[in-house]
Amino acid sequence: MGKVYKAHILYTKEKERFEVLENGYVAVDTNGRVLGVAADLASLNIQCKDTEVTDFGDRLLIPAMNDLHVHAPQYRNQGIAMDLELLPWLLNYTFPEEIKYSDTAYAERMYRRFVRDLWRFGTMRACVFATIHTESTRLLMHIFQESGMGALVGKVAMNRNCPEALCEGVDAYVEGQESLIAEANSSLPPRVRPIITPRFIPSCTPAMLRACGELAAKYQLPVQSHLSENRDEIALVRELEKDSTCYGDAYDRYGLFGQIPTIMAHCVWTEGEELELMKQRGVMVAHCPTSNFNVASGMAPIRQFLNEGLRVGLGSDISGGHDLSIFRMMVYAIQVSKMHYQQNHERPFLTLSEAFWIATKSAGSFFGRVGSFEPGYEFDALVIDDSDLNHDNYSLLERLERFIYLGDDRQIEHRFCQGREITEPRVLVGN
Amino acid sequence: MGKVYKAHILYTKEKERFEVLENGYVAVDTNGRVLGVAADLASLNIQCKDTEVTDFGDRLLIPAMNDLHVHAPQYRNQGIAMDLELLPWLLNYTFPEEIKYSDTAYAERMYRRFVRDLWRFGTMRACVFATIHTESTRLLMHIFQESGMGALVGKVAMNRNCPEALCEGVDAYVEGQESLIAEANSSLPPRVRPIITPRFIPSCTPAMLRACGELAAKYQLPVQSHLSENRDEIALVRELEKDSTCYGDAYDRYGLFGQIPTIMAHCVWTEGEELELMKQRGVMVAHCPTSNFNVASGMAPIRQFLNEGLRVGLGSDISGGHDLSIFRMMVYAIQVSKMHYQQNHERPFLTLSEAFWIATKSAGSFFGRVGSFEPGYEFDALVIDDSDLNHDNYSLLERLERFIYLGDDRQIEHRFCQGREITEPRVLVGN
Repeated sequence: MGKVYKAHILYTKEKERFEVLENGYVAVDTNGRVLGVAADLASLNIQCKDTEVTDFGDRLLIPAMNDLHVHAPQYRNQGIAMDLELLPWLLNYTFPEEIKYSDTAYAERMYRRFVRDLWRFGTMRACVFATIHTESTRLLMHIFQESGMGALVGKVAMNRNCPEALCEGVDAYVEGQESLIAEANSSLPPRVRPIITPRFIPSCTPAMLRACGELAAKYQLPVQSHLSENRDEIALVRELEKDSTCYGDAYDRYGLFGQIPTIMAHCVWTEGEELELMKQRGVMVAHCPTSNFNVASGMAPIRQFLNEGLRVGLGSDISGGHDLSIFRMMVYAIQVSKMHYQQNHERPFLTLSEAFWIATKSAGSFFGRVGSFEPGYEFDALVIDDSDLNHDNYSLLERLERFIYLGDDRQIEHRFCQGREITEPRVLVGN
Repeated sequence: MGKVYKAHILYTKEKERFEVLENGYVAVDTNGRVLGVAADLASLNIQCKDTEVTDFGDRLLIPAMNDLHVHAPQYRNQGIAMDLELLPWLLNYTFPEEIKYSDTAYAERMYRRFVRDLWRFGTMRACVFATIHTESTRLLMHIFQESGMGALVGKVAMNRNCPEALCEGVDAYVEGQESLIAEANSSLPPRVRPIITPRFIPSCTPAMLRACGELAAKYQLPVQSHLSENRDEIALVRELEKDSTCYGDAYDRYGLFGQIPTIMAHCVWTEGEELELMKQRGVMVAHCPTSNFNVASGMAPIRQFLNEGLRVGLGSDISGGHDLSIFRMMVYAIQVSKMHYQQNHERPFLTLSEAFWIATKSAGSFFGRVGSFEPGYEFDALVIDDSDLNHDNYSLLERLERFIYLGDDRQIEHRFCQGREITEPRVLVGN
C-alpha cells in the first residue's frame, strides 16, 4: 500500500514557473514513486481510497535537494582559510587533509558527520569526490547506504602534480576501483553507486585518463571531474594535452566527456567548441556559485547555459564553497547571474523558479527520475515548517522564497528519499 | 563593583590582525566600560581582586556587531521579490509597505520582531531608517530603549518622487522631528538617539534638504542617507541638483556631508572629488555587500576605501539585502572584494581580520568608543558557543572563521551592550 501526503505543494515542472497546489495531495506508490499530484483527493484519480492521508497542515512540501559537486574529505576545511590564495590553500589545507583519509577511523568519523550534515540541509542525493583511498571510499558508500540517501561516490584518480601520498599508480587505481564496483554490485542498492572520478587533467597522466575512460565504458559508470574553472588551469591543460582543441576535448579523447553520463564542475570559462560538445553530449554542468565567489576564478555564465539548453545543476563544492545548503546555492546562483546582468542587461538574471528548477528537476535528472512530483518520479521530498518565518500574510511563493533566502535546517521537518522518510544519520559517539 | 569575564577573547585593535587571548580575561567597570584585557588575572593590573570571575569556559568572546544601514519598515519584505527589477520592487513592495506604518499597531508588531531579530544575530547597535511617520518612529525608539540595545533612529524626510501617502511637507517634517528630539532628550538614554535622515536627494526638495541640514546643525545630530548606489540615480541627481559638482556635493551644500557625523550607504560609484570630500570630512561609508549582489547596481570598491583611509562599516540594508546577520555581511564583503580582485589583482581581497575590524571597531566608532575591548571601550560583546561547529582540532582563529562562515544565531549564547547582558526583546503575544 502506498501513501498520500497533504500539504502546500510547490515544485517546478518547467523552469519558467512553479506548480503551486495549496492544500494539495501527492500519492506515492510502494516503490517510492509518485503516482499523482492534485489539488484535491478526488482528482488524484488513483486507487488510494483505503490509504491513510498524512496531513502536514500548513507546511510546504517541495522536492529534496541534489548536490552535484562536493568533496567529502574537505568537510573539516569547510569555512576556514577562505582568505588564502589557491596554491597555499591546496598545499596547506586540501592535500594534507586528504592524506589523512588513509586512516579509516578518521575517515569514518568525518564522513559520518558529513553525511549527517547533508541530511540536515535536505540534500538527499549527492555526487561526491572522496579521496584516492579505496577503503575510506568503501566506507563512505556504506555510510550513504545506511543513511537511506542516494549518492554517486568517487574514488579519486590522481597520479601527477600532487604530494606523493596522494599519488596512486594506474594499476592500483584500477584494482581499487574494480573492487568498489564489485562491492556496489553485490551489496549496495542502486541509489548508491561508484562514479569514475579523475580529479582533473592536471592530476592525471594520459595512462590514468585512459584507464578511467575504459572503466567507465566497461562498467557503464558515470563520470565526474572539474572543467575550465580558472584561466591558469586552462593554460596548463593546453600545455599538458597539446593535441586537444580545448579542455573538454582533452577529456573527450579518453571517453570522459559524455560518452556516458558526465558531470563537469565549474565550467566558468566554457564557451565555443567546448560548450557545443557539452550540449551535443548532454554533459551536465555542476554550477558552484559560492565557490565562484570564494575562489575568485570567475563566474560561470549560467544564463547562457540555460539559453543554450545545457544540462545544469548546483554544487556546494565544499570546501571551495563554504555552505552545504543547496538552498543557499540557489541564492548565490541568482547573485552570480546578477553579476553578469549588471555587465550586460541582455543576460537577464535567474528567476527564483529557474534557480529552483536547476537545483531540483534539472540536477535530479542525473540520478534518474528525481527532482519533481510528476507521476513516475521518485518521491524525494522535504516538509518545511516555516511558521517562524511566516509572521505576516505571505503567499505560498513568498513563503518559499523567504525560506530559501532566510531559512536553514531548522525549518526542514521531514525528509524523504525514494518514498522513505530519512531519519538523522548516526554519527560516532563522542563526536 | 565591576565584572570580570574569562573566555577565549578575540578582537581587532588594528585591521591587520586579530588580538587573540586564549583563556583571557576582560574587566568591565560599573559604567559598562572595559577596564582592561589580559592573558591572566594578575596582568589585568586593576583592582578586581574582590570581583567574581564569570568563566565562559571554552567559548569565544568577541565584540558585538554594528549594523550601519537597515530599513526597519522593510522587515516584512526581507527575502521576497528578490528577482524583481528596482522600479517594480519600489512601487509594489517598498512604498506600499512603508505606507502601512501610519498604523502604530502594525508598526509595533513589526518593529518588535525586527528588534528581536537584530538581537538574535548579535547586532547591539544599529543605524536605522524608519518611515516618515513620527508616532511609529517614536515607538521604534522606545522599543530600542526597552531592549537595552543602542540605535540611531531616523524619521525619514521625503517630499518628492514618491507616493502621496509617503510625502510629508517640510514644516510637518520639522515639527515631527523636533518632537522626537525633545522626547529623546527628556526620556531616552544616550544610546538611543534620533538621526537626521533625508531618504536621498531624489526624494527631497531643496527646501527639505535645507531643513534637514539646519536640524542637524541646530541639535548636533548625526546624518544618514544613500549615496551613489546606481548610475541612473547618479544621473538623476545631476539633473536635480545642477549646481552640484557631484552627488556628495549635493548633500554638502545643505550641510549634510560630514559637517556633523554622517553615514552614507552604498557609495558603489564613489570616486574622485566625492571620495576626497568623504575622506576630508570623515563621512562614513555603510558598505552593504549583500545588497550590492541582490540589487545588481554595482559593487563598492571596499579595498580602495580602506587604502584611502575612508571610514567604513557594514550594513544589512534590509530588504535590498536579505540577511540581518552582520557575520554574513563579512562573508559577502570579502566576496565583493574578491570580485574586484578577480578583475584586478592589484586590489587584494579583504582578509578576515579586515572584514571583522570593519564590522566592529571601525563601524562601532560611529556610536562612540564601541567595537573593541581596549580600555575605555563600552563593553558590547557576544559569547559564542561553537561546540557544534568545533568537531576537530581547530585553532581559535579557525573557530572564529568557521563561526563567521557557517554559524548563525544558534551559537550566540550571551549578548552584552554597554556592559549589561541583553535578554531576548519582547515581541507581541500571538506573533
